[in-house]
Amino acid sequence: MTPTNTARLPLFSRRDRIMIAVTVVAAVAAGALHFAHANPLAAFVVSAIALAALASLVGRSVEALGDRLGPKATGLLQTALGNLPELFVILFALKAGLFDVVKATLVGSILANVLLVLGAAFVVGGLKHGRQRFAADDSRTLGLMFTLAVFILAVPSLTAALHTPAATHERTVSLVVSVIMLALFGLSLPASLSRSAKQNHGSPIAANPDSAAAASKAAMHGEWPLAMAIGMLAATGVGAAFVSEWFVSALQPAMDAAGVNEVFAGLVIVAIAGNAVENVVGIQLAAKNQMDYAVQVILQSPVQIALTIAPIVVLSAGLLGQPGFDLVLSPLLLASMVMSALVAVLVTFDGESNWFEGAALIALYGAIATSFWWG
Amino acid sequence: MTPTNTARLPLFSRRDRIMIAVTVVAAVAAGALHFAHANPLAAFVVSAIALAALASLVGRSVEALGDRLGPKATGLLQTALGNLPELFVILFALKAGLFDVVKATLVGSILANVLLVLGAAFVVGGLKHGRQRFAADDSRTLGLMFTLAVFILAVPSLTAALHTPAATHERTVSLVVSVIMLALFGLSLPASLSRSAKQNHGSPIAANPDSAAAASKAAMHGEWPLAMAIGMLAATGVGAAFVSEWFVSALQPAMDAAGVNEVFAGLVIVAIAGNAVENVVGIQLAAKNQMDYAVQVILQSPVQIALTIAPIVVLSAGLLGQPGFDLVLSPLLLASMVMSALVAVLVTFDGESNWFEGAALIALYGAIATSFWWG
Amino acid sequence: MTPTNTARLPLFSRRDRIMIAVTVVAAVAAGALHFAHANPLAAFVVSAIALAALASLVGRSVEALGDRLGPKATGLLQTALGNLPELFVILFALKAGLFDVVKATLVGSILANVLLVLGAAFVVGGLKHGRQRFAADDSRTLGLMFTLAVFILAVPSLTAALHTPAATHERTVSLVVSVIMLALFGLSLPASLSRSAKQNHGSPIAANPDSAAAASKAAMHGEWPLAMAIGMLAATGVGAAFVSEWFVSALQPAMDAAGVNEVFAGLVIVAIAGNAVENVVGIQLAAKNQMDYAVQVILQSPVQIALTIAPIVVLSAGLLGQPGFDLVLSPLLLASMVMSALVAVLVTFDGESNWFEGAALIALYGAIATSFWWG
Repeated sequence: MTPTNTARLPLFSRRDRIMIAVTVVAAVAAGALHFAHANPLAAFVVSAIALAALASLVGRSVEALGDRLGPKATGLLQTALGNLPELFVILFALKAGLFDVVKATLVGSILANVLLVLGAAFVVGGLKHGRQRFAADDSRTLGLMFTLAVFILAVPSLTAALHTPAATHERTVSLVVSVIMLALFGLSLPASLSRSAKQNHGSPIAANPDSAAAASKAAMHGEWPLAMAIGMLAATGVGAAFVSEWFVSALQPAMDAAGVNEVFAGLVIVAIAGNAVENVVGIQLAAKNQMDYAVQVILQSPVQIALTIAPIVVLSAGLLGQPGFDLVLSPLLLASMVMSALVAVLVTFDGESNWFEGAALIALYGAIATSFWWG
Repeated sequence: MTPTNTARLPLFSRRDRIMIAVTVVAAVAAGALHFAHANPLAAFVVSAIALAALASLVGRSVEALGDRLGPKATGLLQTALGNLPELFVILFALKAGLFDVVKATLVGSILANVLLVLGAAFVVGGLKHGRQRFAADDSRTLGLMFTLAVFILAVPSLTAALHTPAATHERTVSLVVSVIMLALFGLSLPASLSRSAKQNHGSPIAANPDSAAAASKAAMHGEWPLAMAIGMLAATGVGAAFVSEWFVSALQPAMDAAGVNEVFAGLVIVAIAGNAVENVVGIQLAAKNQMDYAVQVILQSPVQIALTIAPIVVLSAGLLGQPGFDLVLSPLLLASMVMSALVAVLVTFDGESNWFEGAALIALYGAIATSFWWG
Repeated sequence: MTPTNTARLPLFSRRDRIMIAVTVVAAVAAGALHFAHANPLAAFVVSAIALAALASLVGRSVEALGDRLGPKATGLLQTALGNLPELFVILFALKAGLFDVVKATLVGSILANVLLVLGAAFVVGGLKHGRQRFAADDSRTLGLMFTLAVFILAVPSLTAALHTPAATHERTVSLVVSVIMLALFGLSLPASLSRSAKQNHGSPIAANPDSAAAASKAAMHGEWPLAMAIGMLAATGVGAAFVSEWFVSALQPAMDAAGVNEVFAGLVIVAIAGNAVENVVGIQLAAKNQMDYAVQVILQSPVQIALTIAPIVVLSAGLLGQPGFDLVLSPLLLASMVMSALVAVLVTFDGESNWFEGAALIALYGAIATSFWWG
């Protein structure tokens, strides 16, 4: 793990080394606390730190792999693997029957990205550069796609809440909607592979190669050899799977000890642990006044959560022994998600930001989180 | 009915001749099945085909009349007569007391246009031309007007669902809202007659003469003499009235036989039968990369349904012996309509489309239709 | 009170003199009717006229003070004092325990500005100038900020209606949301003081100095000496406080006499009395084809109501002996406010208007007002 020099950048940047060190220490400590049946709050906090660090390293490995396989593959890889740690946490929580946590985490990840991280990017960028513009078509398309994905995702919840005759068919509606969403996503994969052309037929939910490159550059990464990128991805992936299980098993006792309800835990704590570190890059891009890339990097994650993670969870629920799981969100979760979708599309259509808008996004996040305090 | 040649185009294009043949055969068969009290499913399917063909021919006749009367009249004619067959079906269903079918058909026609037809236009155009743009002010104004019309139309439903003190006054609220909508529409008529000037005061819900001309050209129609246009409009109008009655009388037994509930029948089957064929032109314009005209042709119909058909149905309910009919939609119909309005305005404000957005629109339509399967 | 001449404009314009005369006469009459315990309907109408006139004069005094203190202070002053008379009415109604009136007035002021006054501006401007454009970033930012403010303001209502576990904590959620909103507003104050620079970090909810200047010019005011501006502001402020109390004390008996329910009275009558006259300037700017200024002048008031008046009312409820007051709106009030927020943001993002859009905004206002007739 000693850094090797390339012509320009060391193999492991300073950030890389810190992240690897934090990850190893936190993951080992999380495992020790888990098997020692230690204080659940300590086990939870340490595994949350390990998970956040692992999420960051998985993202780093995907980027490194993308550097090697070229821009055509980057989008596909990031689309498929970018939310891997969140997916692990959600699947272990599902297996443990924590349906409320699963649904709150799905929505919370969306809210954290659209309101908290985008808000922070607007504040940081706006304080440094004043009014910032992001006029790229890709940003607008991403905002629109997010809204469409959320509207599709909202159908089972709306049906359950508003359409009495279908009330006993929630699981079926959820399955059909999940198949529709994955079919939509599957259709986009061939296109994202041929995404290099300018006037492309590409998938707007896959990472734009330019923004991926900008994100990679903003993080000042050294280039990793292919074998190392694959090895690191495998190692962090496996690590994320283990830590996720420890994290989920500590979740309920820790929340009981702290007096925090499950929904709030999923919506705020789990969602931030899974998204915060990896999204530092989006805020860094805003600080460098590369707002189009910042907006794309930040909004891509919620689009993928809505369009791929949510249906995968529903379709794999049977395999995990939870055939009763569906996509029916509680009414306030649904309302919060729809508000965040409208905010995302309006903000990208506006095409400019200032610090005050960012503060308002964070304020909206705070207001929503407050109302979930009583779960 | 033998085609006569003009200098450029035959009086009846190949499409014209096919439509007329299909219409005559299907209408005669529908009448025979109706009076023979034959299998209701067969009667329903044949009358649906006849109705779709008639809808297409009514549209064709209105266009031909517009060609003769000049661009000033085209907008007014299309506004007044373009949804004639749908209006007949809805009025006969209202007379038969099928309130749920009427309301589902109103909303279904809106959804079919905004999600299914616009989605298909984006897919067809996007696969052929990549990213397509439509920046015209008229498109944006149409999207905004549609949202405003849907918001006005939503007031009686919102009142019934959310405002207990007015719960027993649903019919009165519906009547007042209907008068407001027709007054708004009436105000726009003088303006649409003087719509030729560029910087006009015109009505954005009437057809733009340019897009009407483009639609006419896309369909490669021959020009019809005035008498023939009027005669064909009268013949198809009368035919549509008869076939509508047969269609509605077959609807309930056919749906019972097929195990389909009334709301789904209205939302999906009736709405597609009434809108599909006439909207082929919108998709053809997208394939020819004339996206502004495509969007205008496709969105004009739902605006008119919301702003004129809906209030006309309410105000004529008393004449048809159904004084209890109101504009209160079931909550899921309301939510679906509001989502489609937001989609329409966001899509037109975005000003560009790709095949994936189109696929997402169709996916949203599929998800909504699924949830109404249990009626 | 005799007008003095400056080089260009008299100290008191013709409008000034009319307003002062109306104010004095109406305020004196309102006081007389109040203390004579006269017919409550007459007392209500006269105090409403006095209040509307006072609102206009307070706005005039704030403008005059802004002229003297320079553009940096104008925004801050208008933000802090522009809605003073509405605030008085709301606080007296709160003190009298008329919670429904308070909430209806808050929402009604928003609806009156966004739908009625903006609609009237579009109609007047559109009939005179045809299609009008307003492309300024400030207009779009204001529309977006309004939507964000309304979404934050909606959280307590959504929580009460949709989230059972928090149902007994409505007051706490309202307090937290109020503190969040005022913190957001407080953060913007330093920025609005340094708002002169073009590429500013400024607060988009404070008045743009340019639009304030245009508004002042549109009203063709003479410049007032500083002492006079302060004196007039103090006099009209004190007057507004007295008349507000008389107005509120006449409200309930007058509405009982007229058979109008409290919610409708707050939503329509009180809101129009508090907003109508001062917003004439917005309509005048539209008539002069200065649409950017018109939109900013008109939308600034609802942003401030949502972001400052609403939380101030909640936080001062305890001081007024009404510690049970919260921000939970009735569902239809909430739905109407959300619709108006979406309309505001879509209209500003569209960047152009025509008379028909204006008519549709007024029609939506009429439909909503109708549904509240049964309170």
